Amino acid sequence: MSTLRTNLLAAATGAALAYVLPAIYRRLRPSTAASTHAVRGGSSHVNVPHDELSRLVAACLEKAGTTPKHAELVASVLVYADSRGIPSHGVNRADFYCTELERGLVDGQAEPVVEKDEGCCAVVNGQNGLGAVCSARAIQLAIDKARTLGVGWVVCRGSNHFGAAGFWAQQALREGLLAFSFTNTAPFMVPSGGSTRAVGTNPICVMAPAANDSYQLDMATTTVPIGKVEVMDRLGKGLPRGWGVDRDGRPCTDAAEVVVGGGLTPLGGYAETAGYKGYGLGMLVEVLSAVLSGAAVGPNVPSWNAHRGKPMDLGHCFIVLDPKRFADGFDERLGSYLAQMRGLPGQVLVPGDPEREYERAAAAKGVQLHTNVAKSLRALAARLGVDEKLVPAPLAQLDATAVRGSLMEREGSGLAKK
Amino acid sequence: MSTLRTNLLAAATGAALAYVLPAIYRRLRPSTAASTHAVRGGSSHVNVPHDELSRLVAACLEKAGTTPKHAELVASVLVYADSRGIPSHGVNRADFYCTELERGLVDGQAEPVVEKDEGCCAVVNGQNGLGAVCSARAIQLAIDKARTLGVGWVVCRGSNHFGAAGFWAQQALREGLLAFSFTNTAPFMVPSGGSTRAVGTNPICVMAPAANDSYQLDMATTTVPIGKVEVMDRLGKGLPRGWGVDRDGRPCTDAAEVVVGGGLTPLGGYAETAGYKGYGLGMLVEVLSAVLSGAAVGPNVPSWNAHRGKPMDLGHCFIVLDPKRFADGFDERLGSYLAQMRGLPGQVLVPGDPEREYERAAAAKGVQLHTNVAKSLRALAARLGVDEKLVPAPLAQLDATAVRGSLMEREGSGLAKK
Repeated sequence: MSTLRTNLLAAATGAALAYVLPAIYRRLRPSTAASTHAVRGGSSHVNVPHDELSRLVAACLEKAGTTPKHAELVASVLVYADSRGIPSHGVNRADFYCTELERGLVDGQAEPVVEKDEGCCAVVNGQNGLGAVCSARAIQLAIDKARTLGVGWVVCRGSNHFGAAGFWAQQALREGLLAFSFTNTAPFMVPSGGSTRAVGTNPICVMAPAANDSYQLDMATTTVPIGKVEVMDRLGKGLPRGWGVDRDGRPCTDAAEVVVGGGLTPLGGYAETAGYKGYGLGMLVEVLSAVLSGAAVGPNVPSWNAHRGKPMDLGHCFIVLDPKRFADGFDERLGSYLAQMRGLPGQVLVPGDPEREYERAAAAKGVQLHTNVAKSLRALAARLGVDEKLVPAPLAQLDATAVRGSLMEREGSGLAKK
Repeated sequence: MSTLRTNLLAAATGAALAYVLPAIYRRLRPSTAASTHAVRGGSSHVNVPHDELSRLVAACLEKAGTTPKHAELVASVLVYADSRGIPSHGVNRADFYCTELERGLVDGQAEPVVEKDEGCCAVVNGQNGLGAVCSARAIQLAIDKARTLGVGWVVCRGSNHFGAAGFWAQQALREGLLAFSFTNTAPFMVPSGGSTRAVGTNPICVMAPAANDSYQLDMATTTVPIGKVEVMDRLGKGLPRGWGVDRDGRPCTDAAEVVVGGGLTPLGGYAETAGYKGYGLGMLVEVLSAVLSGAAVGPNVPSWNAHRGKPMDLGHCFIVLDPKRFADGFDERLGSYLAQMRGLPGQVLVPGDPEREYERAAAAKGVQLHTNVAKSLRALAARLGVDEKLVPAPLAQLDATAVRGSLMEREGSGLAKK
């Protein structure tokens, strides 16, 4: 219980500004009495050293059919999310990523191709390879352009899930640059006035460097990720008004209705609280990520499952800006602004504060994984024949017998578009 | 009553995605029995031909102390807003703009100076001149850069109110370019977890060209503009949950509490419906508009009234992109996407649809003005000694005796920051 409450609180306080697909929390969803007990009982988390966890995940991905270099990159993207308190985009996805590679749904050997490159603009084709591989190429290109031209604006098509949007913006942030990272996703948002899912959870991520500080926004353009709806369902609680709609597009506080036939509201909720703005922002992300690049757009993006029968063809957009091209002293001004906001009466945070707290804890105590995720990862490594020596001690000590059937056996129905 | 209901519906359906300061609807607020009757009674609107209205407003501005060229530009910005169904940013501001010019709060003769210009990036200093004058220079610079370099990214400081954000993005849209337009404003948003107003209503505006169509988003990053709160107050209705907070930052459905000592929620409302995302977006607009440019930031922006004693020093940001630098066929793809969304089951619009409807009506029947706004404009023209021949017939026929004391005599208290 305390775990769920912690998860929920973390999410509610903005720690998990994540754009999540149902597979994520479904993974955590107890399907047996044993796992229910595990979730509600005592030691529901384990902590694993960052590098050991990354090595294990990379070993799994390599066994599933990608190159050592790509495996290492993808592992670092997934572990980054867990370190930041965004478990929805963390190593719990390793299982699904591996299945996609094994079934050839994603080409683990593919290298992205720069299809167009002129001045500060470029288009990268991911060739249906790993989303992280395509994104790494694109963000580096955008960084290089920003360094020489002030701005780099690179879009991707033919890509797949790229992990937490923040990972990519952070590459530029580390070099003192301001960066935007966007992606479209499988549809989960029901547009204002509509009744069908037609827009992804489409994150907007922006990071900007400040003196000894930074601004780090990473948010879905839906009110909440589907995972939060599923957590409320597990707790047997009704949803707060404004999170979801039923199959007819009507306001709905029943989690099951929202997950199965309904969908998520845009940020803002229903019309009276300006949900049409979040819908407009969701569409903006489609325009930047998919319309500019020629990727699949909105309602045409397939559901993210193993039965999709065609490439996801996701689109991303990375915009990198060198703030030194503008008024001198950007870093100092932003630092002062962030400090001023934190100093306001009350409990005012700035975007990125909760994630930094998680990162400090992960660095000190190891990356925190939900026990079920840890067990699944251990089972995945065994199934793929990963050398047992690569299994970190905290995972090796776990009783993995309670691990449920694989995600691929279970998912599908809830993910299907209405 | 029908007028108020019309206003409210227009706003509620997304027509007035406006970021409004209290002065706006306060202007419309009935302060006498006569004007209450006028508002609740019959002929509450007049329609004025576009060009005649623009000429009158320009004549007022010129009399108040700006050049003929600047006056014409500002008038076109104000009339644009009324034509689009955004009266909060329309000619009802002419009175306040004129007062700012007369008192020297805004320098009507100032010309903007390009302080930094390198590649696709530039900084423009508005020299405390009219916001529209600074913005016209900046958006043209951004358009020129986008044409030659693919991207133009121009920020402004030392500026003033620039009108409806859409006016500027539309300059680029007309040339087949994609454009973003941002500005910070006087603080009205109370940050998540806080109790004081510290972020502006900070609009995000994006327009993108499509084949025989376009995407036009123009939204405040608060849930609603303060004007909508005041309309509910006038109707004697409680506010929907999620619009505002009281002076202690607590959820509040009492309009007077919200207007006087409290403030607006960020898009998303309270924490349980992810208001921290709208707060993060509001801060993003500050970063792009004011931190990049060196303008006044967030809590440091003065209240927008005649007692401020210092320049507003607002910041703007204009980003223009040539979609032809990316995958071929952008206009067609966006056109298909917009059509697909409108064709979904239900009543699904795309950003810009309500505003286009207003524009068609304005072109056919003249620009619709609230009777009180029309009367005030007529009185303003008389006070400034504008040639009576310039007063359009629909205004000349009005009984202007019911016009209340000037805005400048009334405003102040409600605008004061807590």
